[in-house]
Amino acid sequence: MIHEAIILGAGLGSRLKEHTLAIPKGFLEFNGKAIVERSIQKLLALGIEHIVIGTGHCHEKYDELAKKYTAVQTILNARFAFTGSMGTLELCVPHVTGAVLLLESDLIYDAIGITALNNDYHENAILASGTTHFGDELFLEAVKGYLQRLSKNKNELSSVYGEFVGISKLTSALLTAMCAYAKANEKSLPKLEYVQALAACADVHPVFVNKIKYYTWMKIDTEAHLKTANIEILPHIIENELLRTIRRPVLLNPGPATTKDSVKYAQVVPDICHREKEFTALMAWTSRELTGFVASPDEYETVLFSGSGTAANEVLLSSCVPDAGRLLIVDNGSDGERLTQIAGVYALDADIFKCGPNDPFDAEILEKLEATIAGGNYTHLSIVYHETSTGQLNPLEIVCPLAKKYNIVTIVNAVSAYAGIPMDLAALQIDFMSASSDELIGGMAGLCFVICKKTELERTKTIPLRNLYLNLYDQYDFFAKQQRSRFTPPIQTIYALRQAILETKQETIAARYRRYTECWEILSAAIERFHLQMLIPAAHQSHLLTAILNVDHPTHNYEALYNHCRTFGFNIYPGKLDSADTFRVANTGDIQIHDMLRFTDVLGSYLDGIGWKY
Amino acid sequence: MIHEAIILGAGLGSRLKEHTLAIPKGFLEFNGKAIVERSIQKLLALGIEHIVIGTGHCHEKYDELAKKYTAVQTILNARFAFTGSMGTLELCVPHVTGAVLLLESDLIYDAIGITALNNDYHENAILASGTTHFGDELFLEAVKGYLQRLSKNKNELSSVYGEFVGISKLTSALLTAMCAYAKANEKSLPKLEYVQALAACADVHPVFVNKIKYYTWMKIDTEAHLKTANIEILPHIIENELLRTIRRPVLLNPGPATTKDSVKYAQVVPDICHREKEFTALMAWTSRELTGFVASPDEYETVLFSGSGTAANEVLLSSCVPDAGRLLIVDNGSDGERLTQIAGVYALDADIFKCGPNDPFDAEILEKLEATIAGGNYTHLSIVYHETSTGQLNPLEIVCPLAKKYNIVTIVNAVSAYAGIPMDLAALQIDFMSASSDELIGGMAGLCFVICKKTELERTKTIPLRNLYLNLYDQYDFFAKQQRSRFTPPIQTIYALRQAILETKQETIAARYRRYTECWEILSAAIERFHLQMLIPAAHQSHLLTAILNVDHPTHNYEALYNHCRTFGFNIYPGKLDSADTFRVANTGDIQIHDMLRFTDVLGSYLDGIGWKY
Repeated sequence: MIHEAIILGAGLGSRLKEHTLAIPKGFLEFNGKAIVERSIQKLLALGIEHIVIGTGHCHEKYDELAKKYTAVQTILNARFAFTGSMGTLELCVPHVTGAVLLLESDLIYDAIGITALNNDYHENAILASGTTHFGDELFLEAVKGYLQRLSKNKNELSSVYGEFVGISKLTSALLTAMCAYAKANEKSLPKLEYVQALAACADVHPVFVNKIKYYTWMKIDTEAHLKTANIEILPHIIENELLRTIRRPVLLNPGPATTKDSVKYAQVVPDICHREKEFTALMAWTSRELTGFVASPDEYETVLFSGSGTAANEVLLSSCVPDAGRLLIVDNGSDGERLTQIAGVYALDADIFKCGPNDPFDAEILEKLEATIAGGNYTHLSIVYHETSTGQLNPLEIVCPLAKKYNIVTIVNAVSAYAGIPMDLAALQIDFMSASSDELIGGMAGLCFVICKKTELERTKTIPLRNLYLNLYDQYDFFAKQQRSRFTPPIQTIYALRQAILETKQETIAARYRRYTECWEILSAAIERFHLQMLIPAAHQSHLLTAILNVDHPTHNYEALYNHCRTFGFNIYPGKLDSADTFRVANTGDIQIHDMLRFTDVLGSYLDGIGWKY
Repeated sequence: MIHEAIILGAGLGSRLKEHTLAIPKGFLEFNGKAIVERSIQKLLALGIEHIVIGTGHCHEKYDELAKKYTAVQTILNARFAFTGSMGTLELCVPHVTGAVLLLESDLIYDAIGITALNNDYHENAILASGTTHFGDELFLEAVKGYLQRLSKNKNELSSVYGEFVGISKLTSALLTAMCAYAKANEKSLPKLEYVQALAACADVHPVFVNKIKYYTWMKIDTEAHLKTANIEILPHIIENELLRTIRRPVLLNPGPATTKDSVKYAQVVPDICHREKEFTALMAWTSRELTGFVASPDEYETVLFSGSGTAANEVLLSSCVPDAGRLLIVDNGSDGERLTQIAGVYALDADIFKCGPNDPFDAEILEKLEATIAGGNYTHLSIVYHETSTGQLNPLEIVCPLAKKYNIVTIVNAVSAYAGIPMDLAALQIDFMSASSDELIGGMAGLCFVICKKTELERTKTIPLRNLYLNLYDQYDFFAKQQRSRFTPPIQTIYALRQAILETKQETIAARYRRYTECWEILSAAIERFHLQMLIPAAHQSHLLTAILNVDHPTHNYEALYNHCRTFGFNIYPGKLDSADTFRVANTGDIQIHDMLRFTDVLGSYLDGIGWKY
């Protein structure tokens, strides 16, 4: 699996002069989007986490782009006018750590090409196509599939095997050799192109030619290319890529949420044993990154488990409260009840601080809670952050510090909040929190995890195991010591989670929360417009899920509403309370403003249909 | 998700007379494989579980093919010479239950087309391409993407939107309407073609045209088609499909095993909430089918859990042995030890019948075991079927009936045997067994399951819960009563498991075991040839995994052997015993004879390299 890419974008694009006086070639636009941005998006969707762009001519444009994509780093070749592309590559190489995808900046291409290279057995491989007649082709000669020579002049080759596409997969060793070659020939070949260096090193580092005869791509060098690209090539590429997109119903239920195609496809990886170094490194990376979203990895540690959010909660309650401990569970909804149920199964010494699910968690309740805590000799407190039966966001920022005042260990069920709402575990004084892969982080179902304050995690070491599979310390300790998973983890789900993490880093949790809030505001406004009623006052809501009272109208029933929404590609969710007749609408996952606008129209059309007046 | 397909294969193929005198058109071969068989394989890989082929001319050829593919059913249109294709379709429709993919038999096509139809939002959709110039094209007119008219004569259409490919996705309702239309026009249109009926019904049942401008396909009607198909179209299709194949290392570790691409891609489905009817129906189907491989679903029940094989074992031991019960664990390797560890965590009243892992489970041991059982007042016995630390297959066929003689409930860890070795739970007298999705059934990691004798499962109802997430009765009872999963299951893993189940049904477990045994025999012979030594006598081995003693040679080390194998795409596994210095080679999953032959060559080249004499 390749993690890094280099894009060579320093060139002048002199044959497209009018177009490239003020922009690099990579910024030529098709359908309003720059070529290089298309390329970056394909690389990110493939799971590339670091893209180094070698810049020169009009480098400011690239620097601007780097602000938009956190994975992008620009490296300026100030001497770009005096070097060839190899001069730019030499400057980029020190900034990558392993094998890379190396791309030219002026390409449009079907993403299947980089997938094929990523998936190629051969460590060094370049992409080639069949005959294009584009003009200015770089032909290549191969023996048994391996690169021999490259030339724009067919006559210099014994035979033409294909045309070089301008995309390669190269190992560190080959990159190093190419740089050494450039260095050695600095004087004689000051304008060395990277393909010359590649060909020169290919005898020692065999380079496989991954030829796709019918590949859809184009390198934009001339006016004629620009035209053909617009009329023929790009529409073909877009059609090919659309064929691989997945039908997209919008899930408005509280997890699993709507996910991106890139995350779904990230599940499709070559088979790998979970004990392989690549995989254990992935698990370690995943843990660290999951921690990083909410805390410092120096202070907190993430431990991964198979299972859903409930499994993570069971991990915490069964592993963190010693026999001599005394637990207080704050329960104001079904998620809270589930915590109570787990404590019951393990016969923990637990009290329940129960509040009505419809009651806002206000000053009065907080006062009662403090009184309970003060008088209870509790060692541990467990609370839900986002209660999905009602959409209420419990005030952790008050409850956890309050518990800490009494030296109580805090255990938070953040399954339906983590990665959707900005959190700072240290500031919130949370010792343990639970989450799962298929909720707001944007991955697929099957993996859950707990994030633990390291000092508190160490204190659970001496608690006798109450189960094996879901024991926290054992799971943590085994991986820490053996550098592999205690049991077979859901391997493909972890690859998908990696992609979800990368996309979360790109978006940032703060921006995601703004997007969710905007979606919720659209829903909120519609609820008001339609004279519907929310269960919980707006100020106490999560902005992630809204419980709405079913309308009191003779022809309304939930099933009919559900079916109506489903016809239009939306999945709403039934209520879960005895105390109120509600249905629920979550606005999480890969949901966009236009989805929510469309949904409120669908809701309106249902209400019109039953003759609800508003 | 479409589960069924109909292929119309009755026609005479009169324009290809020489070729189709003795075969139906679908049996025209390209690269040695019949067109229709290519089509069947694409449909099966897409997850189609039932294919009805309407036959006529030379129908015996199709009947023959149906013997090879258990999913295929043939329906003869004896009057094929007097009807059009609609006459054949009418006979097929009663044999399908829901929406279908409807295909003509004389097509070669890129599988992406049926994926795109399956993935299309529109319930009724037909596949169209851009201009082909094939000759004999069926042109279609569309308004806003919906089918208006079809004709071979462009002049009959107001405009040409595309060319009909001969592949459609049709609902039950539309099929029924088409049959009614045919019935109503029986006299006037005795030779009605299905496309005419389709066009006639499209005003009431809107049919979306899924147009792929650059689609690669061909309908073989003439000599010229045959030639073009061979030279141009088929190579293009094969290239396109190869681009979507995944790199295939061969995993020789004891689970996760090498999986098929079709199973990997089955994970990529539109997002779905686990409470949707489609999904709960899938879970019920999955349980029933998993049971069906080893027992009667009337007598046994399968319950699904998140997690690996160890989770399934924890489910059984923590849920099936009451406080007053007394458990005997047979432990002759690491898998047995794991059972002991679980019993320990739950403080079950358990004795361990420990045998040396290297000792064959022979008559002497059986005698000792009977003596232990006779004197122990045990209520439950737990044993591993296939012990993966040694490759030994424990003699369940003796041990379980022996336990039953003493009225002991039998709990079998069959994680590394289920779906790889034919089992009959009733005959073996097994009450509970554990398995997981990523082992021999051929799915992806993340799901495990237990198969339970229903009467014994009911008896666990009164055992107080020792955990929540892994409790057997609660999990079973919730699904049975609520028709949905208690907690969010690993959704995509279950879709992959569905595909693995379908492929297991196609292969059969008996044939799979023969394949494994052949692979093992190749390994066995190589071990002898190389003067290596197996840990366990051959007669006691599973044929699924072999523990091999590390050779006593100064330049040998396991790490070097592992790396050598890895270079050639094979993953071997270290040993796990204190009592013997071994490494392990499993031959399970999607492993083929040629893989094993290649592996033994790789093993030989390693031994040659270190100078091992044999």
